[in-house]
Amino acid sequence: MIMNDLEMDRAKSQASVDRVLSYSEIERRARDHGVAAPGSADIVHVVLRDAKIKQVLVPANFPYSHAARLQELGYQVHAKPDPFYEHRVIKTAEEVRHIEEAQRATEEAVAAAHGLLRRATIQQGELWLDGDRLTSERVKKLINVKLMERDCVAQHTIVAGGEQACDPHNEGSGPLPADRSIIFDVFPRSAASRYFADMSRTVIRDAPSPELKRLYQTVQDAQEEAITKIKDGADGMKIHRGICDRFEKAGYKTGLVNGRMQGYFHGTGHGVGLDIHEAPRISRTGSLLLEGHVVTVEPGLYYPGLGAVRIEDMVLVTADGCRNLTNFPKKFELD
Amino acid sequence: MIMNDLEMDRAKSQASVDRVLSYSEIERRARDHGVAAPGSADIVHVVLRDAKIKQVLVPANFPYSHAARLQELGYQVHAKPDPFYEHRVIKTAEEVRHIEEAQRATEEAVAAAHGLLRRATIQQGELWLDGDRLTSERVKKLINVKLMERDCVAQHTIVAGGEQACDPHNEGSGPLPADRSIIFDVFPRSAASRYFADMSRTVIRDAPSPELKRLYQTVQDAQEEAITKIKDGADGMKIHRGICDRFEKAGYKTGLVNGRMQGYFHGTGHGVGLDIHEAPRISRTGSLLLEGHVVTVEPGLYYPGLGAVRIEDMVLVTADGCRNLTNFPKKFELD
Repeated sequence: MIMNDLEMDRAKSQASVDRVLSYSEIERRARDHGVAAPGSADIVHVVLRDAKIKQVLVPANFPYSHAARLQELGYQVHAKPDPFYEHRVIKTAEEVRHIEEAQRATEEAVAAAHGLLRRATIQQGELWLDGDRLTSERVKKLINVKLMERDCVAQHTIVAGGEQACDPHNEGSGPLPADRSIIFDVFPRSAASRYFADMSRTVIRDAPSPELKRLYQTVQDAQEEAITKIKDGADGMKIHRGICDRFEKAGYKTGLVNGRMQGYFHGTGHGVGLDIHEAPRISRTGSLLLEGHVVTVEPGLYYPGLGAVRIEDMVLVTADGCRNLTNFPKKFELD
Repeated sequence: MIMNDLEMDRAKSQASVDRVLSYSEIERRARDHGVAAPGSADIVHVVLRDAKIKQVLVPANFPYSHAARLQELGYQVHAKPDPFYEHRVIKTAEEVRHIEEAQRATEEAVAAAHGLLRRATIQQGELWLDGDRLTSERVKKLINVKLMERDCVAQHTIVAGGEQACDPHNEGSGPLPADRSIIFDVFPRSAASRYFADMSRTVIRDAPSPELKRLYQTVQDAQEEAITKIKDGADGMKIHRGICDRFEKAGYKTGLVNGRMQGYFHGTGHGVGLDIHEAPRISRTGSLLLEGHVVTVEPGLYYPGLGAVRIEDMVLVTADGCRNLTNFPKKFELD
């Protein structure tokens, strides 16, 4: 590892590498070799030349300018397809504990938010609390603050109701509806462990219409069936297609309507770890699921005019099934 | 802009581009052209071919694997040195307002944290509060929660005392000392505007030794002198060297002692905006400062055994000077 002066101490005490080299010392050597303004690639060049290395393997997202400079200097640069660190895909027991800890904090925060919705009164189809209309912003802030109290950093938290929820990544804004579904999608990162958690729930405060009730039940059934199919050796693509087929058969079509996608138009799941989205995928491109993967299972249906439902758990793939790392009720109607 | 189905709606309503193209539609066209599993570069290829484009300009950190694939497809790929979006370096009045808003939240949070230190009692050189030793962790959490209440996301907040503070990026842990300096470095991002703020202050709760007092005064004087030199056309490298010289003359040497850097071994400042560190730099590599830049000014001195001081304001460069965007006292001894 090559580190600047500012980080030398931390690198030596925290990094699991064989040697920590000083950037500024190597920079001096590069200047001695006649490079007037050595860049990062020139610094690396000094070290590689000493080690007689001619080929380098880099992550797929390695900066192009560095790669181009290394090529100029005569190196063969190969990009390794993701994941670069393959062992990151299979989680150790300690990593699973970190993810579960972030998940417990997530559940606590969402429970507090649902408490806020329960306390609200209903006036003309909207939720009111403490003399004001209850907004997405207020509920999201409660979630984010609760998570920060547990040392978890939440960004882009989704609390989106009614039409807003029909755009799966709309974070939600303004007054929350009482008689339409509200999607909660919360995915904080633990500041201590740096691992993520991820959970979605959909709730409604007032009595749902039969159509919304059926939409919810369809998504829940599909999600729970998908979970039963997850195990070591399962094919992510098949699981995803199973959900698509199930939705189609239930009469929920997917496609463009008036230039806007509706139905089911996102993947079923993704790996969770030090990144919020990492390998493997449960989607139309698919991946083989293996013991030790931690993946989300999050089908959803989105119909402008009617509303949207998404339900997401995080599970640990095991030899003969999976262990659900999520411990939070799936209940549409808040009582 | 090419977007996947999931983000089409948001892209159309939020992005300031001429056209939003559907990734999945272009993917179908690529398959029709015989590409079995089109990657991102193949998708881009379909669009560029239609537009008869043969050369592409990419950011310096553009993923190498995409660049290599584009080159295979016959494109000339050029990396543009940072900053890719040059206009980001010069801040508009609106951008400055966003930064100031995040800075006001930062000041409030640090004021609350200093309040906690003031309320603490001193027992055997350590700070105690509510029957417990007051820790870095507790103070950092207060800051981060206060910031989240203001919709600002703080990560890697530094509250480091005594020896820990001598490593400039040590975030701090465990009980806080009463008779040694404590560095606060807080740099949250507004969740609403996405702009950062950045401020450092150093305080001590008990009476400082004359050596620590002198260390503090030296850094404060150097910081304030540097601020007087900032204006449109000023040279960042000269300002940085001025601080280095001043420290040297005051007898504060910089270099390795027992394999560890001490003295002044980081840059004096950096641009702040949508990134926490962006152009320009006030450092040994330097940049020309221009009206509309927002930069930090943050000299520090670090001496294991004695302690550390860093003082940081954020200023807006103007035609004939600068406007300090920071509104927080520089006072070493908490009363």
